[in-house]
Amino acid sequence: MRNRIAMRILIIGGGASGSTAAQFARKTDRKAEVILVSNENYPFYSRCGLPYALSGRVPSFEGLVEYSQSWFRQFKIDVHLGTEASSLDTVNRTVKLRSLADGKEENVPYDALILATGATPWMPPMEGAYVQPGKLREGVHFLRTIPDGKAIAAMLKKGAKAVVVGAGLIGMETAEALTEMGIDVSIVDILPDMLLASLDEDMAAAAREIVAKRNIPMFFRSKAVKVTGDAAAKGVVIENSETKEQQELPCDIAVISTGNRANIALAVAAGCELGVTKHIRVNARCETSVPGIFAVGDCTEYVDFVTGAPVPVGMGTVATRQGRTAGINAAGGRSEMPRGILGTRVTEAFGMKMAAVGPGEAQLKKAGIEPLVGKFSGSTLPSYFPGGEALMVKVLAHPESGKLLGAQIVGTARVHQRINAFAAAIMAGMGLEDFARLETAYAPPIAPTLDPITLACDVALMRLRRK
Amino acid sequence: MRNRIAMRILIIGGGASGSTAAQFARKTDRKAEVILVSNENYPFYSRCGLPYALSGRVPSFEGLVEYSQSWFRQFKIDVHLGTEASSLDTVNRTVKLRSLADGKEENVPYDALILATGATPWMPPMEGAYVQPGKLREGVHFLRTIPDGKAIAAMLKKGAKAVVVGAGLIGMETAEALTEMGIDVSIVDILPDMLLASLDEDMAAAAREIVAKRNIPMFFRSKAVKVTGDAAAKGVVIENSETKEQQELPCDIAVISTGNRANIALAVAAGCELGVTKHIRVNARCETSVPGIFAVGDCTEYVDFVTGAPVPVGMGTVATRQGRTAGINAAGGRSEMPRGILGTRVTEAFGMKMAAVGPGEAQLKKAGIEPLVGKFSGSTLPSYFPGGEALMVKVLAHPESGKLLGAQIVGTARVHQRINAFAAAIMAGMGLEDFARLETAYAPPIAPTLDPITLACDVALMRLRRK
Repeated sequence: MRNRIAMRILIIGGGASGSTAAQFARKTDRKAEVILVSNENYPFYSRCGLPYALSGRVPSFEGLVEYSQSWFRQFKIDVHLGTEASSLDTVNRTVKLRSLADGKEENVPYDALILATGATPWMPPMEGAYVQPGKLREGVHFLRTIPDGKAIAAMLKKGAKAVVVGAGLIGMETAEALTEMGIDVSIVDILPDMLLASLDEDMAAAAREIVAKRNIPMFFRSKAVKVTGDAAAKGVVIENSETKEQQELPCDIAVISTGNRANIALAVAAGCELGVTKHIRVNARCETSVPGIFAVGDCTEYVDFVTGAPVPVGMGTVATRQGRTAGINAAGGRSEMPRGILGTRVTEAFGMKMAAVGPGEAQLKKAGIEPLVGKFSGSTLPSYFPGGEALMVKVLAHPESGKLLGAQIVGTARVHQRINAFAAAIMAGMGLEDFARLETAYAPPIAPTLDPITLACDVALMRLRRK
Repeated sequence: MRNRIAMRILIIGGGASGSTAAQFARKTDRKAEVILVSNENYPFYSRCGLPYALSGRVPSFEGLVEYSQSWFRQFKIDVHLGTEASSLDTVNRTVKLRSLADGKEENVPYDALILATGATPWMPPMEGAYVQPGKLREGVHFLRTIPDGKAIAAMLKKGAKAVVVGAGLIGMETAEALTEMGIDVSIVDILPDMLLASLDEDMAAAAREIVAKRNIPMFFRSKAVKVTGDAAAKGVVIENSETKEQQELPCDIAVISTGNRANIALAVAAGCELGVTKHIRVNARCETSVPGIFAVGDCTEYVDFVTGAPVPVGMGTVATRQGRTAGINAAGGRSEMPRGILGTRVTEAFGMKMAAVGPGEAQLKKAGIEPLVGKFSGSTLPSYFPGGEALMVKVLAHPESGKLLGAQIVGTARVHQRINAFAAAIMAGMGLEDFARLETAYAPPIAPTLDPITLACDVALMRLRRK
């Protein structure tokens, strides 16, 4: 290790968690050397924003950059783009960096290492998706990076057809973006409904009913088994899981949004313990099992706030907060994440808006909790006020204590911010009884006197009292 | 008392609290006689909706009726409109009712009495407002009842001018409604800014700056001292509190929105204890000091959740919840209000949206708490996403424990539902540290990764740690 006075914090990965870690390391120790390495060619940009750059709502892909090179320079953070960490030595605390442009290698010592290596899109077993290992067939795309987005954008021409495989948050947002660009989109998912990683079945069905009004062809319980075509994709063959019937959906573009696999090679090489979800296990300080090595973001797992079960992080919300925590701790400060992940998640697509927090019914049951359920369908406005829109609220509470454990909201307006009240309540251990009596925002053009969020708790409370 | 088996619950007042009480009394005891008496000629309607019926956003004043006569019939609630309670006998438990139409009187026995007598608009000492005691000069109006609203509506003609005296919630909403109807409106308030009963000075100034963009003439620190004109009002003379300079604002309509005085005569006659605010004092069960008599709504005071100080109820939100509690308790059930009033309050006018909960700085200081303050000005959306609007958030926390005590938000969009997260946090006793780490709703078209509501807590937290 060369002679130096200031500590050196090395961050591998330039996404939300890594870049936030760099920022907070710098804020915590103004003298530290902070080095950030990214295998991409853009500094920190919003991955979640990619569908919106595709649709043009964000005017350019470059517009997604959140911290520019000059921003990093201003904060005296040394950024190496187009660079990968190829190996590391935890005894001597060095990482070997390799330039992807010219292959040049360099051993860089560190005092603290933050792994923010993210995740790579997962390709389901689908014949013909690749023309050779690692090379996707023309027209087959992921949407994980700016180059991915630009490649899809280059395919958008009038009359083009697209198939989006995966009806999760990103899949739905991508399908909407393509539709907004005038592309005929079909949506395919192996599960029985959309958004089932985010919503319970009943709430997912409510979300689907709203989307269905836009006449988007949707194929559920359907596995994408094959990409047809020669040089370029011509269609996606899907197979119904029940009937085993196959059909080909003709397309010029197939976007695969079936989730990600954590990038854990470096962590494994370092000897960092993995969790049951095969992500890097970290504690509330974002420390791995190896001294001096922190991990943050999509490559990590943490525990669910309510059930305590290990869950992949996988959300920008948590990644950013982990970045802050790891950055502060790596620089010698003191920061802790809450005791678990609330899992606040929101999206909107095709006029449907959804928001959820906490585990769903299935996750609770898996954790041995048979939740009390309260559901209420109401309006965003008082009944006499024109323009109110339907809002469906579901709450999940502990069957004995009545503590709020989860909430899901689906509607067409004023959905998203309502979930934050539940997030605060769950974090604070608030019970149904208190939440049902919460003084919520009320004014005629704004919300009803008794808000659907409190009335759903009333419904659950009646069940609690009947027990 | 005549011979009867079912208990009789008598409710005086047909507004939000009284009607809700009737509803929940019925739900609690299906056999009880529930009688509701109102001195108005409309069954329960939304007073808060009056400005919106004036502007036509709610198509008619009759459209504000929330529980119609047939609704009451369906619930077997005996409604007497146009009827006042002129006196009562708490020993024999009877109330004397008098028909306002024909003066007929009747003694009605009760087992439980719920006073929901509301409040009457307060007229500041303003020369010429009345042509004779109790009779307002033509063109001078309150906006408390449907007849008030209809009387104003009848005055609306092209080129008409109006002065709204009082820049509180109702005053601002009324001024907006009149402006929407094409009336030239000036706003006058004796205080240095608008909405000072709802917001701290700094946040009120932010609200005013937004409204000011609409070029509405506003006169603060200005007392309305005189109504000019003969048969009909021709203008309002205002006097600057500092310079004592007077000027006349010409107008055809003057709407007085300077607050209300509780209707407590019946409660005083019954021997119910009043509180320091000269409203009826009630406990968490909405019981007055007299056995068998409950009180709810604008005629009552309760305590502030945070400071414990007595405060007039004065909000539909709380009135409705008190109605539920009193109705259940009067019918032999069991219900309690939370230990105090959170005071969640929201409005929008002239493009300005505000939301607040909990006491402001002045109320906290009066209660001996020098609050930690955190303020953050951010955007409703991530910086890269077009269409984000400015949002200013202020949090007030306990200087030692860091517990959240109050919050205020001002902006032009997505303001209102954000306050509910603070309301839940305050009710649950959540501290800055937890709230700052709250996983809030995040998606590019919805909200930034780190929401201004959590960042305001971060600012306060830094101050807490510096102590």
